[in-house]
Amino acid sequence: MSKKIKGRFTLPAELNFIEETKELIEKWGADAIRDSDGTDLDEDLLNLGQINYSKYFVARGDNEFALNHFDQTQQLFVRTDYHTAKDTSLTFEFMTGFLDEQIAPDFRHNPKEWWQVHNRTTGELIDVSLWSIDQDKLTITIENTTPYHEYTLNMLTYMIWDPTQMYNHITNDWGDKPHDIPFDVRHDLTKERMKVRLREWLENNPKTDVVRFTTFFYHFTLFFNDKRKEKFVDWFGYGSSISPKALIAFEEEYGYRLTAEDFIQKGYYNSTFVPPTKEYLDYLDFTQRFVTQEAKELVDIVHEYGKEAIMFLGDNWIGTEPYGKYFGDIGIDAVVGSVGGGLTMRLISDIPHVKYTEGRFLPYFFPDTFYVGNDPTIEGVENWITARRAIMRKPLSRIGYGGYPSLAYKFPDFVDFVADTADQFRDIIENIENKQTYSRAKVAVLNSWGKIRTWQAFMVAHALHYKQIYSYLGVLESLSGLDVDVEFISFEDIRNGIPSDIDVIINAGDAKTAFSGGDIWNDPQIVSTIRQWVDAGHGFIGVGEPSAYEKGGRFFQLADILGVDKELGFTLSTDKYHETVENDHFITKDLDGELVFGEQINNTYALNENTEILSIQNENVVLSAHPYGEGRGVYIMGLPYSHENTRILSRAIFYSMGKEDDFYKFTSSNIHTELNVYPESKKVALLNNTNELQETTVYDGVGTEKIVSLKPAEILWGELDEQNIKITF
Amino acid sequence: MSKKIKGRFTLPAELNFIEETKELIEKWGADAIRDSDGTDLDEDLLNLGQINYSKYFVARGDNEFALNHFDQTQQLFVRTDYHTAKDTSLTFEFMTGFLDEQIAPDFRHNPKEWWQVHNRTTGELIDVSLWSIDQDKLTITIENTTPYHEYTLNMLTYMIWDPTQMYNHITNDWGDKPHDIPFDVRHDLTKERMKVRLREWLENNPKTDVVRFTTFFYHFTLFFNDKRKEKFVDWFGYGSSISPKALIAFEEEYGYRLTAEDFIQKGYYNSTFVPPTKEYLDYLDFTQRFVTQEAKELVDIVHEYGKEAIMFLGDNWIGTEPYGKYFGDIGIDAVVGSVGGGLTMRLISDIPHVKYTEGRFLPYFFPDTFYVGNDPTIEGVENWITARRAIMRKPLSRIGYGGYPSLAYKFPDFVDFVADTADQFRDIIENIENKQTYSRAKVAVLNSWGKIRTWQAFMVAHALHYKQIYSYLGVLESLSGLDVDVEFISFEDIRNGIPSDIDVIINAGDAKTAFSGGDIWNDPQIVSTIRQWVDAGHGFIGVGEPSAYEKGGRFFQLADILGVDKELGFTLSTDKYHETVENDHFITKDLDGELVFGEQINNTYALNENTEILSIQNENVVLSAHPYGEGRGVYIMGLPYSHENTRILSRAIFYSMGKEDDFYKFTSSNIHTELNVYPESKKVALLNNTNELQETTVYDGVGTEKIVSLKPAEILWGELDEQNIKITF
Repeated sequence: MSKKIKGRFTLPAELNFIEETKELIEKWGADAIRDSDGTDLDEDLLNLGQINYSKYFVARGDNEFALNHFDQTQQLFVRTDYHTAKDTSLTFEFMTGFLDEQIAPDFRHNPKEWWQVHNRTTGELIDVSLWSIDQDKLTITIENTTPYHEYTLNMLTYMIWDPTQMYNHITNDWGDKPHDIPFDVRHDLTKERMKVRLREWLENNPKTDVVRFTTFFYHFTLFFNDKRKEKFVDWFGYGSSISPKALIAFEEEYGYRLTAEDFIQKGYYNSTFVPPTKEYLDYLDFTQRFVTQEAKELVDIVHEYGKEAIMFLGDNWIGTEPYGKYFGDIGIDAVVGSVGGGLTMRLISDIPHVKYTEGRFLPYFFPDTFYVGNDPTIEGVENWITARRAIMRKPLSRIGYGGYPSLAYKFPDFVDFVADTADQFRDIIENIENKQTYSRAKVAVLNSWGKIRTWQAFMVAHALHYKQIYSYLGVLESLSGLDVDVEFISFEDIRNGIPSDIDVIINAGDAKTAFSGGDIWNDPQIVSTIRQWVDAGHGFIGVGEPSAYEKGGRFFQLADILGVDKELGFTLSTDKYHETVENDHFITKDLDGELVFGEQINNTYALNENTEILSIQNENVVLSAHPYGEGRGVYIMGLPYSHENTRILSRAIFYSMGKEDDFYKFTSSNIHTELNVYPESKKVALLNNTNELQETTVYDGVGTEKIVSLKPAEILWGELDEQNIKITF
Repeated sequence: MSKKIKGRFTLPAELNFIEETKELIEKWGADAIRDSDGTDLDEDLLNLGQINYSKYFVARGDNEFALNHFDQTQQLFVRTDYHTAKDTSLTFEFMTGFLDEQIAPDFRHNPKEWWQVHNRTTGELIDVSLWSIDQDKLTITIENTTPYHEYTLNMLTYMIWDPTQMYNHITNDWGDKPHDIPFDVRHDLTKERMKVRLREWLENNPKTDVVRFTTFFYHFTLFFNDKRKEKFVDWFGYGSSISPKALIAFEEEYGYRLTAEDFIQKGYYNSTFVPPTKEYLDYLDFTQRFVTQEAKELVDIVHEYGKEAIMFLGDNWIGTEPYGKYFGDIGIDAVVGSVGGGLTMRLISDIPHVKYTEGRFLPYFFPDTFYVGNDPTIEGVENWITARRAIMRKPLSRIGYGGYPSLAYKFPDFVDFVADTADQFRDIIENIENKQTYSRAKVAVLNSWGKIRTWQAFMVAHALHYKQIYSYLGVLESLSGLDVDVEFISFEDIRNGIPSDIDVIINAGDAKTAFSGGDIWNDPQIVSTIRQWVDAGHGFIGVGEPSAYEKGGRFFQLADILGVDKELGFTLSTDKYHETVENDHFITKDLDGELVFGEQINNTYALNENTEILSIQNENVVLSAHPYGEGRGVYIMGLPYSHENTRILSRAIFYSMGKEDDFYKFTSSNIHTELNVYPESKKVALLNNTNELQETTVYDGVGTEKIVSLKPAEILWGELDEQNIKITF
């Protein structure tokens, strides 16, 4: 590996570390330096001759203005706890459980217009004449209550502390440091102030080359409880983007008024797991158009000053929706985000309409990893080889790390590892950037959200683990590096017919959620469209509780395709004989031992003798296939990310579309390795996805075998002949 | 143990085994002898001086009549497989998958009147003008179909082979033995014939003392597939009791016509797991009244001949419903049934309106148990001590065994065991029959069926194991021997207020089923009635998915009582902090080690910090308690029967009603032992529920302790003082 090229690497800055920083710039081939949430670049750093990135907060960090225009503070709908009436009247304190440092009830706007009381036992909205607010005691009294029914109050509040600053403030114990009050671009004064302030800042920061917007106007929904701990987090939540002004503007355009309940959603709040209502989708579109327009004005100012604008994918990113319809209109130059693996890598690298994308890799240079006795290289290698397989499909333009470089500097092995990684990354870029990557199939992930949530399905808080999601996230993590094209489509997308280039549809998720689809499976058009399409020779892979909706004697509405249904108890009287496991099957061919499928979906069973059962655990079918006309269905209970499960999915894709024979063209037998082919650049890359030696059989474009050995974590580059068939390493 | 009394024991008869039979009669203290499905009593057996039981089949075994009156054969609604239309017309064979030896399509009645075609993808009933039947080819053609929708045909058929005889015939390979054709008492000729035949039989069997009806008119739903294997079995199914005659009579009375779909129920058929529709409940009531009236006429004839009538609880028992409103009107003298444990024992022994009840114990004297090298006593003891704890609560009047006594005779240890068991049983009877049994609480099992399915919840085929039911059946098995009164109540029962004598309600079952309740939990009245009642100081125990109905931000509608809900994905954004397990709690005090809760209900979590979590497995709450006003809720994930889980339930009952202090009055510390108290007879019985030595601390009526040792499987009888406090062993 030669160090032919430099660059494409952003270094985090640290004050009073200038000589070592120069050393790291040289070793890692860095061409940019950036500040952090806690630090600014000083003159020494700014003069290193690097591209200088500076963070910029649009909607906070201007408390003097905010305090003088408190009516323009950002707002949030929240609901109280559930309260049980024991009589025909009920009084309760409505701020219980909220952090009053963050949330303040909005009495400026008439509560009778913006607040709502619900009987959650009946679902009824209570007439405003039946309740009254005591603004001093912070209590509500509801009259005419039904004993032993439960009531909640949906409140309009001001969000008087920026959630990210609050998180950092509380986590790092910043004491009496002022709380950043977020202000709302909906208001003309605030909007004007934002622009003036940006211009001032640009004037004062002439050495900044790239303005890193962190981010624009509205934070994802995040509020804390009265113990200063997180109470609610939704990385996709639009809850903090509302205001009477916004909702009135919405009403003027759409002809109807949204209420608090459109955001509180039966008490759940709208997470991406709740199938989106038409009203909520309208609001998302409305807000995206507004955010796009306002963000464009700021980006234009940055460009006016001859600088680039990069957007951090997080924090106040609400309304930008990089995979939405309007993102391109912002005119942002680049997006930067954190890379936890292949899935989060693709989430950034696939973003359209930008000149470049940048990924922040793990581990962050923080003391929790960089301490004596720990080897940070282990996490570094793991993160890199997990993300790398996705980079081979669609690379980022730039990489970088975060934290304090002085900590990393103390670990010479780690410094060498980063140097190697940076070189490897630049090698990859040289070989494949903007070149066609060979795909062996096109797979569509089908859910209620579709394209707008590309690589974002199943997430709650960005990249955090939840018991309820890892069995599904593994599908996306596997796909992120597989040699297939991936598209995210919605049920609406298939109403007009499934796009002709799609080979396989995956529907994965728990029953009732937006990812499985919920009530949409009551729609015969959706069901019959997919049936017809599979019958014609395509594949349908269901994971977890696919097509789940109890109707017509079935729970999985596409049980006829999958060959598997889930017993709810209603068909226990019907004998089920078919439970023979096929031990020699195309899908499980490369694997030994018991498969690990994550969370159990209980009571799955084979529908008939045509179901090919590949694994049964605890009497449940966990992996199976089933013919359906010219196509096939495959059922997988869950797919936590692993090399084994990635291979299961890869083979399931081929099997479902009936192209088993094609599987042995351009592939690698060892599940810990993967082959990527680049016909345009006449290159192939054989990846070792482990940090150990691997040996594998590589199959070329006509299936000719070759045994190849790989060093730990190696990428072995090979050449492709003119006919795109033979491989030479 | 003295052999003071004899009797209360029924011996199965065997031909050519007369001397040994006499010996067994003496040893076992038998006072009755009975024939079996395969054998009749000969003169030798009839003259043994015993009470003679003879089986009698009302609705079969008269093929000459049946063949001459084929129009009076019993009928059955079935549905075909699902068939996918690929075009605007669909033709399929409608007998596919049915055993044509058993099921014949009924072309006698107009299919257009009695058959139905459904689009199962939309749920629509297809107009009769759009389909036609080919009676020769046994095909149906449906026009105007929607491509890729699925269709089924609900057919009216004749059931031309009695299910029990079919089962025995196929199982025992009876070759060309004629198939018993079942005939329908709905028809006047058949009804008349049944009575004439019974009189003839009674004339011809003067030595019969007890006529064992096996049973009356309609078999539970049981049909086989084209491979001569069971296709569908519902021990409670009324499917085989229908006929156009019945449905027209129904229409005359109720003013509306039932259709096949009322029995096919969206394709599932009506099992007891499907929440019963009003139409189905109407039909059940209608059929019960009819069966009661017809059965009474036969029983009256038996009585006319000076004989007793006993009813076998099984086979053609449909419509008799021993816990139904009309059972007493039949006038039957006794019920006999098979005893698989405590639950099936109580199912028989609690039957009201009869002079006596009789249980058939396991093992049956068949070669699968009685072979050289096996010790049948092991199963015998296990069966006996499992059933015995329930007998102590409510005894049977008589016991007996089944099969071939010659097989048992070869195992002298087993013969001795039965002798001991019979003596022990007679001892119990002497001490407690018709005497008040002390109960420490009254527990109601709440589901959609209530009283009519007393001790019959969760069963599919009588006493057979299903993965989906054992975690719930354990609740009933535990209750069957606990020192509490048990009542089965329906949601309708509590509409007018929960009966004042109930201390604790148990709601157990999977979501959507009739046992959890399904849509009933959408009814605010049901929900608030229970809340008010628990608040006033009662207990609510939820098992599995209690009160499950997704609404108002909750899945368990009584999550506020239980302190536990199930995460469907919609509240993943809401932080859940409370997962501390309390290791020292009243409910788990007597137990060591990991609890075994059967099937996993995934994603259960504690609602708030008031939930006392007693066990978490796989991040799910499996056992917890929660205060609710003066009462408490207890959540249990599942409760397979074991001594450990029985104690959990017992303590949960006391804890839920807030009477922890009372627990230590009249109890026994060792979970493998149980104390029963009989104030009326001034007796107590301390049971060793294992076949090993046990030592335990017995608490008397004021909690005074005494250490007691018990021999394997022993009942230790003690005396109660006049004040019903002190115990002397």
